[in-house]
Amino acid sequence: MEINREVSKLQYSLIRALNEESRKYADAIDLTIGEPDIPSPKELVMETLKYGAEHQLRYPPTGGGEKIRALVAAYYNRKYDSSYVSDNVVINVGASEALSSCLRTILNSGDEVMVPVPFYPGYPPMINLCCAETVFMDITKTDFKITSELLEKNYSDKTKALLLSNPCNPTGNVLTLEEMNAVADFIEKRDIFLISDEIYSELSFYDFHSFSSFEKVKDKLIIINGFSKSHSMTGWRIGYTIFPLEYRKYFLNTTLYTLSSPMALSIAAAEAALEIFEDRRELMNIYKKRALYMKNALTKLGFKVVEPKGAFYIFADYSQISELDSFDFAIDMLKKVQVAVVPGISFGIEKYFRISLTVDISKLKEAVKRIGKYVEENNKK
Amino acid sequence: MEINREVSKLQYSLIRALNEESRKYADAIDLTIGEPDIPSPKELVMETLKYGAEHQLRYPPTGGGEKIRALVAAYYNRKYDSSYVSDNVVINVGASEALSSCLRTILNSGDEVMVPVPFYPGYPPMINLCCAETVFMDITKTDFKITSELLEKNYSDKTKALLLSNPCNPTGNVLTLEEMNAVADFIEKRDIFLISDEIYSELSFYDFHSFSSFEKVKDKLIIINGFSKSHSMTGWRIGYTIFPLEYRKYFLNTTLYTLSSPMALSIAAAEAALEIFEDRRELMNIYKKRALYMKNALTKLGFKVVEPKGAFYIFADYSQISELDSFDFAIDMLKKVQVAVVPGISFGIEKYFRISLTVDISKLKEAVKRIGKYVEENNKK
Repeated sequence: MEINREVSKLQYSLIRALNEESRKYADAIDLTIGEPDIPSPKELVMETLKYGAEHQLRYPPTGGGEKIRALVAAYYNRKYDSSYVSDNVVINVGASEALSSCLRTILNSGDEVMVPVPFYPGYPPMINLCCAETVFMDITKTDFKITSELLEKNYSDKTKALLLSNPCNPTGNVLTLEEMNAVADFIEKRDIFLISDEIYSELSFYDFHSFSSFEKVKDKLIIINGFSKSHSMTGWRIGYTIFPLEYRKYFLNTTLYTLSSPMALSIAAAEAALEIFEDRRELMNIYKKRALYMKNALTKLGFKVVEPKGAFYIFADYSQISELDSFDFAIDMLKKVQVAVVPGISFGIEKYFRISLTVDISKLKEAVKRIGKYVEENNKK
Repeated sequence: MEINREVSKLQYSLIRALNEESRKYADAIDLTIGEPDIPSPKELVMETLKYGAEHQLRYPPTGGGEKIRALVAAYYNRKYDSSYVSDNVVINVGASEALSSCLRTILNSGDEVMVPVPFYPGYPPMINLCCAETVFMDITKTDFKITSELLEKNYSDKTKALLLSNPCNPTGNVLTLEEMNAVADFIEKRDIFLISDEIYSELSFYDFHSFSSFEKVKDKLIIINGFSKSHSMTGWRIGYTIFPLEYRKYFLNTTLYTLSSPMALSIAAAEAALEIFEDRRELMNIYKKRALYMKNALTKLGFKVVEPKGAFYIFADYSQISELDSFDFAIDMLKKVQVAVVPGISFGIEKYFRISLTVDISKLKEAVKRIGKYVEENNKK
């Protein structure tokens, strides 16, 4: 029988496919999935499990209760000098559901969403599932920078939102104040939403600014964030959306008729994360160290590496090394030296690959050794 | 700014509104929300928390891992003599997300879904969010029975699915084999899905048959179920969908681009539920006792009560007692005798109200006393 036409067009995740392929090699170093290797803070977990032992877990209020929403608002206000209240927040099942539900709340069929390329692979399918269109904004020619010109060029009267990943998955880039000002000026003049996916905000190596600090986009800004990356809580599936107050009833209704409620124990974990484990600098420094090591090592091998400033990825141009397309390059490297990476095409561009820095530095060193061997053998041809 | 047109038309849940209203009365007996009062099995919770203490919770595979999916398939096969394998199953964030994602997977704009009235209040909004239409099939004139005539009458060339709640929320009815045969014959002849919401299956007081026993609908049957009601695990948000194998990739893609993965610890809890706590007869008998008590008590007071056969609801016709519309009736009873019930209009029909049997029998007795007082005072007028 015919099913939903947008669903029938979807491709399964290439990242997951590569990850599954890499499991066929006993000795493979898997640098595909963006899943933290560093465990959640033990005390956070124990506090949460204690809550679970002492409470019958009932339906939380739709969109999450007052306490967690107030904690999220206070956290943003403290860090970014915003002025949110608890009603600016709904709690979601991870940042994925937050973004998926956000798009379903605001998009109509035929709407356009501007997305910089390279992009997080989940964005276009999520937009398509709303019968809307992704407008791909190529930032490779501007050194991965967003400019006023690019924004103007890709805007149309169908544009409904600009969606940004900051810090960026896959590049590890972080927006500069200059870029953010250009974005804010662009949004201020138009009747469109700015969706800022800040899931890696705590993993910024240097300065990080949230759009929540920008007064001029306040009535159009939707922030997506969560605890999967900052507290290595991927399996807990807990995230949140922050939006202008006037849209609360809409976000609440979408979540009511999608999930009914978020998961009670994951909310308790998120509360503990914000109350006891807000400072993530120690964790950030681990990823920073790995990123700088990897950037230097790959540069020495002849790759052109995007300067990593946050998140836990390295995005590298291999065009000096190989003429293969990125998918074939990834498969070839996996076969020959058993290092699994994600091809650039997953993120919308060729001649690049992404490495997840979610293994310890000794494993990264072994990966570099193998990639070095691959480069050497490739050069001999 | 304009948001999604279907979202903008949604009403917030009347049940939740009544529940919130009832909290204004210190002494109110709240019979609104369908949330079990009997806690989850203690050992199930402790087993699960132990798993959480011993494992870092990582992203589960999209749609859930092999173990839980195989357990669900085996459970259905054992109980209903079906022949499912693990790939017939995806794991969801509760039955709500299971149904919401199911509808998003199969419906296109303009499709029709046949739904018996009275209906679970979440159904029409979930269908609307897919830009599809609910065709309301009134079963009040056939003594709450589904007949071939009703099915034929409400079918059109836009029909994409028939959606049934069995055991039924709000009536507590359970489909007879005769009705199920009529449904199966109807589905067999047509290119439409049968969506069977069996979330209350373990809480059937007498015989319960699942459509999964019906060979003739095998290639069109989608089952929604979960652990919220059978194991009082509402706050854990864990449910599942069973579908014909050929649709696996579609269900998987919808859940991938909605949730990424379900919650790891809730999966562990669901595994424990099926491995250690499958037999729910003790729990069922508690609700059955309450249902029979309440049915008799309300009948004596002059209400016409639908015979309860499962779930934990009483659905009663108050037209002999009051001429008010159901919303006003519910508010009036709350004000005068502090008993909160859900008006029939929430489920699509007037002159009825629903009671949740999720308080203990002593509280139900107190509620009956109060309702009796209300009836008496009403008769004096």
